[in-house]
Amino acid sequence: MAIFLAVDVGGSSIKLGLVSENFELLVEDSFRTQDNQENSDQIVENLTKHSLDLLSKHDYRKEDLKAIGIGVPGTAINRTGIYEFAGNLPFRRYPLRKKLTEIFNCPIYLGNDANFAGLAESRLGAGQGAENSVTLTLGTGMGAGVVINDRVYLGFNEAASEFGHTVMEIDGIPCTCGRNGCFESYVSATALIRQTKEAIAENPDSILAITANAEGKVSGRTSFNAWRNDCPVGTKVVKTYAKYLAIGIANVINSYMPDVVIIGGGISNEGQCLVDLCEDEAIKQSFLHGEVAIPKIVIATLGNKAGTLGAALFADDCLKDGLIY
Amino acid sequence: MAIFLAVDVGGSSIKLGLVSENFELLVEDSFRTQDNQENSDQIVENLTKHSLDLLSKHDYRKEDLKAIGIGVPGTAINRTGIYEFAGNLPFRRYPLRKKLTEIFNCPIYLGNDANFAGLAESRLGAGQGAENSVTLTLGTGMGAGVVINDRVYLGFNEAASEFGHTVMEIDGIPCTCGRNGCFESYVSATALIRQTKEAIAENPDSILAITANAEGKVSGRTSFNAWRNDCPVGTKVVKTYAKYLAIGIANVINSYMPDVVIIGGGISNEGQCLVDLCEDEAIKQSFLHGEVAIPKIVIATLGNKAGTLGAALFADDCLKDGLIY
Repeated sequence: MAIFLAVDVGGSSIKLGLVSENFELLVEDSFRTQDNQENSDQIVENLTKHSLDLLSKHDYRKEDLKAIGIGVPGTAINRTGIYEFAGNLPFRRYPLRKKLTEIFNCPIYLGNDANFAGLAESRLGAGQGAENSVTLTLGTGMGAGVVINDRVYLGFNEAASEFGHTVMEIDGIPCTCGRNGCFESYVSATALIRQTKEAIAENPDSILAITANAEGKVSGRTSFNAWRNDCPVGTKVVKTYAKYLAIGIANVINSYMPDVVIIGGGISNEGQCLVDLCEDEAIKQSFLHGEVAIPKIVIATLGNKAGTLGAALFADDCLKDGLIY
Repeated sequence: MAIFLAVDVGGSSIKLGLVSENFELLVEDSFRTQDNQENSDQIVENLTKHSLDLLSKHDYRKEDLKAIGIGVPGTAINRTGIYEFAGNLPFRRYPLRKKLTEIFNCPIYLGNDANFAGLAESRLGAGQGAENSVTLTLGTGMGAGVVINDRVYLGFNEAASEFGHTVMEIDGIPCTCGRNGCFESYVSATALIRQTKEAIAENPDSILAITANAEGKVSGRTSFNAWRNDCPVGTKVVKTYAKYLAIGIANVINSYMPDVVIIGGGISNEGQCLVDLCEDEAIKQSFLHGEVAIPKIVIATLGNKAGTLGAALFADDCLKDGLIY
């Protein structure tokens, strides 16, 4: 039976999945991306070894692979097979397809992890049935995956949909990308932790500070937990965060008018309350008039399987499009 | 010979064109949208009358019309034929197609004027050959037209591509759309005039103030003229304006990665210097790494013919797609 090998490369771990032709995640595995500051070749060697192990452990051979899909953080170009750039990993203009082709002789497709997660949510997850969707992944950074006409939108150079790096505050908070005031700098988990720490420093006796102390560290959950305990300081952090998120979502809506905006990533574990906190303001700020249908705002449902499922879906799209690399 | 009637409704004038099947603008006409605060029905009656006059003046009959394309400011829904909303005109949920069908019995297609101008620039103007383009129209407001895979991108509700109404300054300058800090509020001609007036008020003895006085009023050209005369105050206005434009263009690039960003509208009459003023900063702020191709930034070339040509192109696309309304 033909299967897809689906790979989701992350800053801390690499997830592997064997995915059926019906896009069932049959089995999965994961391993740490870098245990000892491995270089790019070593990471890919580990990736190859774990993939072959996973196949043989489940009685598959390399010949059973219909295709491999690999989602990576940063910029990877499917057309060329080059992994151009990753913020937190050592890949720079790395010939990823060529390296893997030395081991596997099936088609190999690559692209951005957030794009793939967006494709999976759009087809199999929270956006089922959507022609156009935007998935925002609120994690260490903020990824965005745009699906237009049921396909990943890549732009002319395959580097599109970096909505996290659109400025929403001129001369605002410095972003990892070099700009100031990016959407990501206000709504990533990293940003929320910063906002929470600032509030604790200003209000050391607040329930928020006590919550952080009890939890042992400040996380993306801390201010939400304090808010649920009626802490005024935690409430202010959460409401301000929700205001930023609403402004950014309204920007997404005004740009793309997708059927659905899907919120994923670690912060989306807060669930429906996250939508409730920002939905009214996001819709109010959107350029919607008269009877024009209003996009839905929903929480992602595929969790950390979105990346691998999306990699398999993308590989299948490429095969259907006759892209053989 | 079959021709298109192409209509470009503007806040101050309505342009009409008869366009060949090869998208040559054969003849054109225009008239004031509202001479005496006409209501929506009266505007459409004038539009009908001028259209019939134009046809007969050039020996065409209604039966020669292959289709009518109408671009309007605000939100018009092709699927329903309803002109939902226009900021500065009296159209509210107006059944535009139904009204015109009483006179014309060819297919009638409608949509947003900036989208149509973008389509025309993308196919026939500054973006020729582009698969994906974004056209920014710097006029009284700021329109945006997005072309993806050589088609106007409309979003699920046909209200997409309002990039002028994405916030780039939280709690910034109030925008006509109800939000604060929209891209439009910093880069429209209206915004540039406001910025120029503020600089004049603060520097009443500047070359900028003298320039405005000599010109009789402050226009979108005033600060550029003062800048060309080495006025430090005018230079500061122009550089600040260019900074805003660069930030917004980088936002466009990071979102869509179009082959080309096309700058149109009144301000684009400044020509290549406008690109030169913002291009380096826009590219520097874009999320481009390694060998990823860089989008081009260019000045629109079709001038005020973009709207009518785009309306005809859109009507033809609809016919080709088998959309018969």
